Amino acid sequence: MSAPKNTVLIANRGEIALRIIRACRRLGLRSVCAFSEADRGAQYLDLADASICIGPASATKSYLNIPAILAAADIMGADMIHPGYGFLSENADFSEAVAQAGLTLIGPSADVMRRMGDKVAAKTAMIESGVPCVPGPDSVLPDDIAEITRIAQDIGYPVILKAAGGGGGRGMRIVKSNDALADAFMLTKQEAQRFFSNPDIYMEKFLEKPRHVEIQVICDSHGHALWLGDRDCSMQRRHQKMIEEAPAPGIDRDLIAKIGERCAASCREIGYVGAGTFEFLYENGAFFFIEMNTRIQVEHPVTEMVTGLDIVALQIDVARGAQLSITQDDVQTVGHSIECRINAEDPITFAPSPGPIDYMHVPGGPGVRVDTHIATGSSISASYDSMVAKVITHGATRDEALARARSALNEMRIEGVSTNIPLHCQLLDDDGFAKGGVSIHHLEHWLEKRELDHE
Amino acid sequence: MSAPKNTVLIANRGEIALRIIRACRRLGLRSVCAFSEADRGAQYLDLADASICIGPASATKSYLNIPAILAAADIMGADMIHPGYGFLSENADFSEAVAQAGLTLIGPSADVMRRMGDKVAAKTAMIESGVPCVPGPDSVLPDDIAEITRIAQDIGYPVILKAAGGGGGRGMRIVKSNDALADAFMLTKQEAQRFFSNPDIYMEKFLEKPRHVEIQVICDSHGHALWLGDRDCSMQRRHQKMIEEAPAPGIDRDLIAKIGERCAASCREIGYVGAGTFEFLYENGAFFFIEMNTRIQVEHPVTEMVTGLDIVALQIDVARGAQLSITQDDVQTVGHSIECRINAEDPITFAPSPGPIDYMHVPGGPGVRVDTHIATGSSISASYDSMVAKVITHGATRDEALARARSALNEMRIEGVSTNIPLHCQLLDDDGFAKGGVSIHHLEHWLEKRELDHE
Repeated sequence: MSAPKNTVLIANRGEIALRIIRACRRLGLRSVCAFSEADRGAQYLDLADASICIGPASATKSYLNIPAILAAADIMGADMIHPGYGFLSENADFSEAVAQAGLTLIGPSADVMRRMGDKVAAKTAMIESGVPCVPGPDSVLPDDIAEITRIAQDIGYPVILKAAGGGGGRGMRIVKSNDALADAFMLTKQEAQRFFSNPDIYMEKFLEKPRHVEIQVICDSHGHALWLGDRDCSMQRRHQKMIEEAPAPGIDRDLIAKIGERCAASCREIGYVGAGTFEFLYENGAFFFIEMNTRIQVEHPVTEMVTGLDIVALQIDVARGAQLSITQDDVQTVGHSIECRINAEDPITFAPSPGPIDYMHVPGGPGVRVDTHIATGSSISASYDSMVAKVITHGATRDEALARARSALNEMRIEGVSTNIPLHCQLLDDDGFAKGGVSIHHLEHWLEKRELDHE
Repeated sequence: MSAPKNTVLIANRGEIALRIIRACRRLGLRSVCAFSEADRGAQYLDLADASICIGPASATKSYLNIPAILAAADIMGADMIHPGYGFLSENADFSEAVAQAGLTLIGPSADVMRRMGDKVAAKTAMIESGVPCVPGPDSVLPDDIAEITRIAQDIGYPVILKAAGGGGGRGMRIVKSNDALADAFMLTKQEAQRFFSNPDIYMEKFLEKPRHVEIQVICDSHGHALWLGDRDCSMQRRHQKMIEEAPAPGIDRDLIAKIGERCAASCREIGYVGAGTFEFLYENGAFFFIEMNTRIQVEHPVTEMVTGLDIVALQIDVARGAQLSITQDDVQTVGHSIECRINAEDPITFAPSPGPIDYMHVPGGPGVRVDTHIATGSSISASYDSMVAKVITHGATRDEALARARSALNEMRIEGVSTNIPLHCQLLDDDGFAKGGVSIHHLEHWLEKRELDHE
């Protein structure tokens, strides 16, 4: 009916733009890089088949500018658009606009994006598919203390009260017993009214030391949905992942497989097409769904390292309407992989450190992969995210992957800007992380301790 | 008894020097790079813990200069020497001198090197271990035509007559039947006398379209010898390998395992310690030993890609007296790997192309590894081998490894000098090579055809 799709407009920048260029090359597709004035002249643009400026440095005027991106696709003859991660990658309006322009978004439909972007709707869909969620009602709490107590006892203490209007750690209160519940509820409600002008309060189970574990999925438009293993991304600072690994250490593989299969089943039920990630908290042998990311993730390479798959190529394939050429049995995990996100920032204060790179040397050798768009002579823009490279290692065992990560980080050189390489070198030597299975609070605690040690 | 060995002098240059630096880093060992005046200032030297000049550009005065290398080891406090490949890596006198200086060579003893360096002695050792060799007597032919005819019939036609003093394709004659034998023998003998002043003639079986298939071994000093799989290196030009892969396509795996086990057994019998390679010709389901390389080989990364092992680290470990930490059962092959040797040379005339590199971009992404010591701003010396990089890919299947190699070679950029990258791009698209299992003559024939097409 329609001609084969063969040109991908990449509506993103930096390392993920280069990653998508590589996938296009692998699939024999033409790649066109959209770039802002801040990225004009960047070396990675030369690796695409073509490139086009979509606006000034400010992301709202370029990488978030839907009309400019659609115009660029039209001018360059692109029939597909890859949004990468961040920017417009989970914007349902963008998905809709791309479809209305008669183009193919490499990502799910606006409907699915909206449903998964709505926490309550997503949770409802998960519960229907048997994917475990954090216990707690989807509705705001009534003002009836007896009823609230009943709910808390159903969930089991500790529970957390959350202001509907809150977020980012504000407007929350942990409650550990019946005795403390009534006072805590009233206080949280008053604060919610005062700070967010919304007295509505939710309650859910409070997890004390959870880990962040996620399941990668890939689904075609013919009803095939596969899960591609799990990742542990608990090493976070202010909700930003810093080190990721696959598989999640020390978790029962049968349990992971059960969760993975439910995620795949859920994709079939909601008609999900594309690559996606189910994010969970994990504590005491139990998984609790938190959200679904309907895009490629920064940390996808650790899954590629252990499965041998090219997830971005698969993502483009399924967006083009192809059937998945692999079955669940073909997805076999070999060894262990670790990714360190290299940010151009001060390793102590975390202040961004943009500027020209005087010299850069990328590590290599057995089991080492580096995804980066920068090199000697590049310049790091102050306009965007400070992540400039990902160092990914693989080994037969977690210890080997870790040892290779240590060697690789020690070999890496970036001169001219500050980076978090020294911090990674310290973290890779941290006993807690080396043991495996740290909670999402581990890195923050480690950093607090470092500050105290320096005082 | 002795203090732990912890400093490695690298008596080599370029990509293999960097490869050894990486293995030292991985093992927590100090690395010291010996360099010639021609390599002074090379970027890879900064990645070692220290470096020391051992003489002028001329290899005989630096990388082949045994007293200078031993003096450098002494000055720098090195207790081990890694010779890499080429240069002194198979020089038994060097091995002896290193031992006499009280240092450890990362390689076998002088005795073993001499034995394996002598073709007749090596063949005898192989036959004793049940490793199959090219049929033919080890002694020169008598002048008795009846006896020669009996020998030829024992071997089976076609046979090849080889002048003892010949080499490099000269002084050889192929004989296909009894009728032609007497005349061919007399002619070859006369030529041998005339050109090499030595009338001695050997006879062996002539293989018409053999493949070059080799077995990697690693052996410790405690009697453990493992074979790490096979490689096919048939894509050669003038006996120089250009593309290598692991495993060898289309060969019965049980047969390979049998040959591999015999190689390992042979290592145990000759008391081999270190990494080594048994090189074979393969034709019509049969293997014929040709020689053993008693050093790390250029193409070792394809074996690393399919096994996940770090062969250079293992090589250093066993030289330090460690027991192998893996067993034969731990050696599992996953997928397929292909290596393309990138030479700084004209892709048509093969004339070397030294000089400064104005810009270099190295490919990456899933399943891509590049071993190289050069980057933007480096300079390629006219004094040494023209090989400057190795692009190694891995895939679940040979087709996938091949597709990834094509993408990677197409992505790679080296500006300022000529390289054989365009030739590799053509070869990776060649139907014969893509099918797998070409003979050692395939590349030469392909090049001849290309020349004819261009006339």
